[in-house]
Amino acid sequence: MSEPRFDVLGIGNAIVDILAHCDDAFLEAQGLPKGHMKLIGAEEVDRLYGEMGPAVEMSGGSAANSMAGLASFGGKAAFIGRVADDQFGRVFTHDIRSIGVAYDTPAVKNGAPTARCLVLVTPDGERTMNTFLGASVELGNGEINPQAIADAKILYLEGYLYDPPEAQAAFHEAADHAKAAGRKVALSLSDSFCVERHRQAFLSFIRSHVDILFANEDEIRALYEADSFEAAATAIATDCPLAALTRGAEGSVIVSKDGEAVVPAEPIDKLVDTTGAGDLYAAGFLFGQARGLSAATCGALASMAAAEILSHIGARPEKELSALAARRNILS
Amino acid sequence: MSEPRFDVLGIGNAIVDILAHCDDAFLEAQGLPKGHMKLIGAEEVDRLYGEMGPAVEMSGGSAANSMAGLASFGGKAAFIGRVADDQFGRVFTHDIRSIGVAYDTPAVKNGAPTARCLVLVTPDGERTMNTFLGASVELGNGEINPQAIADAKILYLEGYLYDPPEAQAAFHEAADHAKAAGRKVALSLSDSFCVERHRQAFLSFIRSHVDILFANEDEIRALYEADSFEAAATAIATDCPLAALTRGAEGSVIVSKDGEAVVPAEPIDKLVDTTGAGDLYAAGFLFGQARGLSAATCGALASMAAAEILSHIGARPEKELSALAARRNILS
Repeated sequence: MSEPRFDVLGIGNAIVDILAHCDDAFLEAQGLPKGHMKLIGAEEVDRLYGEMGPAVEMSGGSAANSMAGLASFGGKAAFIGRVADDQFGRVFTHDIRSIGVAYDTPAVKNGAPTARCLVLVTPDGERTMNTFLGASVELGNGEINPQAIADAKILYLEGYLYDPPEAQAAFHEAADHAKAAGRKVALSLSDSFCVERHRQAFLSFIRSHVDILFANEDEIRALYEADSFEAAATAIATDCPLAALTRGAEGSVIVSKDGEAVVPAEPIDKLVDTTGAGDLYAAGFLFGQARGLSAATCGALASMAAAEILSHIGARPEKELSALAARRNILS
Repeated sequence: MSEPRFDVLGIGNAIVDILAHCDDAFLEAQGLPKGHMKLIGAEEVDRLYGEMGPAVEMSGGSAANSMAGLASFGGKAAFIGRVADDQFGRVFTHDIRSIGVAYDTPAVKNGAPTARCLVLVTPDGERTMNTFLGASVELGNGEINPQAIADAKILYLEGYLYDPPEAQAAFHEAADHAKAAGRKVALSLSDSFCVERHRQAFLSFIRSHVDILFANEDEIRALYEADSFEAAATAIATDCPLAALTRGAEGSVIVSKDGEAVVPAEPIDKLVDTTGAGDLYAAGFLFGQARGLSAATCGALASMAAAEILSHIGARPEKELSALAARRNILS
């Protein structure tokens, strides 16, 4: 079999983020769970948008952000996700292609509009997300291409895909193709509420398919209904060969057959916006994995990419991550 | 006659900016005149967008940015400009309303899409703009409301409106209404290429209608085909009662019957992006004028607002300008 053309193929919701600042009182008044992602319908997205302050628009989507980050590291990335043939769909398509990610999913005509996420950023830098899935909801209508999956060393799936039933089916289909082609499967648990909605299915899927798992502390504890991070880390060691567990300012813990290794968070001058921090952590880690780098180097790349994204608004890197990594002597 | 409800009514192109970083070589390869605004058609905007790197989208438009700034100072602002009934039109409408500007121009259905401007920001912070006017091009089909104009102390017009013939007619119509209602007329010259395209018409209009003129050094020199800034400043003194002439890092010069007063530029830590600097200068100055503040205070507010916008990407303020002005003891 020939060498795969891509380092990583990401599959996820194709979303344009609409980011605005707000205070904690606004989240409370709107009944929004701080730090989480909530799915909302067409009417609610219009209503909430009307209540929000002035915003900026940027391409988003968890796995899509990770693929943009991977490309910024100089990795070969591909993405599958569904937009509509509208202005936001063209924004999403432009941004992911222009950073160098292969993206060929046809835009859908005459259906729901491109997915958008109202991201509310509080003064502490925390982001609270409200997603209208729109055209993303029906991923799986022919978009999952076995050849594209075989063409990447690692298949990367976002847990958010588990919410819409059609996308969930596409998710399983893609993972089966990857396994059949001898490729690795990576999964991000995305959000602890998402984990709570699908705990048993996720556990079963991790045990049967997942080679690399990404989760933050809340998510991994939700997966095992664990009282402590330590108990959850012990549990994942028996269920998955490699897990990268992020703990915010405390850094991350890489759990593998070699035991647990702590990776410090990279210090930042000012936390501006956490949007995309987990996605960019995954980008750095996956780049290192695809290139056969050590777990310590994968962790360092991951922490560096997360720090870059925390220092500005939005979930896509502003600086070229390959140059940043070279300057820090993480990559030569 | 009752007191006008608004401090300033701005009329201008209603545009969504699409901002991306590029290097000088890109501008050269694309034949784009650095620091200027170029009008481009529907095909060219798609072609150039395809060549650009990943971007962010933010509401823009020169007079619209000024009205957003005025509202951020706590001023009562209104805006007239034409968007289409599409996603970018809804973005523009949301952003200007949510910052507190009265904006009721109906969105146009079944015509050209909302105007967009491809803004290329070079490492020196300079912005080079490529505008597809779309739905803005036909401003003047009933949008100019004499009552709305009488309802504002100052009518503010952007020079860019002079390019499309229908908007040019609307521009004159609006200025005549303002004069008839005893209101002041303010004009921004917008761009030296724009001035070169319409030099005689602008001069004639300034002499007959304009009470407050905004121009940068290139624009005022282009207006008078002057060899020096000083010669142009002397010339405008005889043609217009009050002119605020900006000179970048050298600050600005306020020319009035009292002579010339120099206003220093406010120091900034790092010049990130000049997009909107002139627009926000005008916002601060107009706010002061509408509230009857001294020329020195108007200049200080203008410099402060320009400095805020220079320190980040995009042409709309990120910080509340009223709070910023209070903290600096410019406003109590």
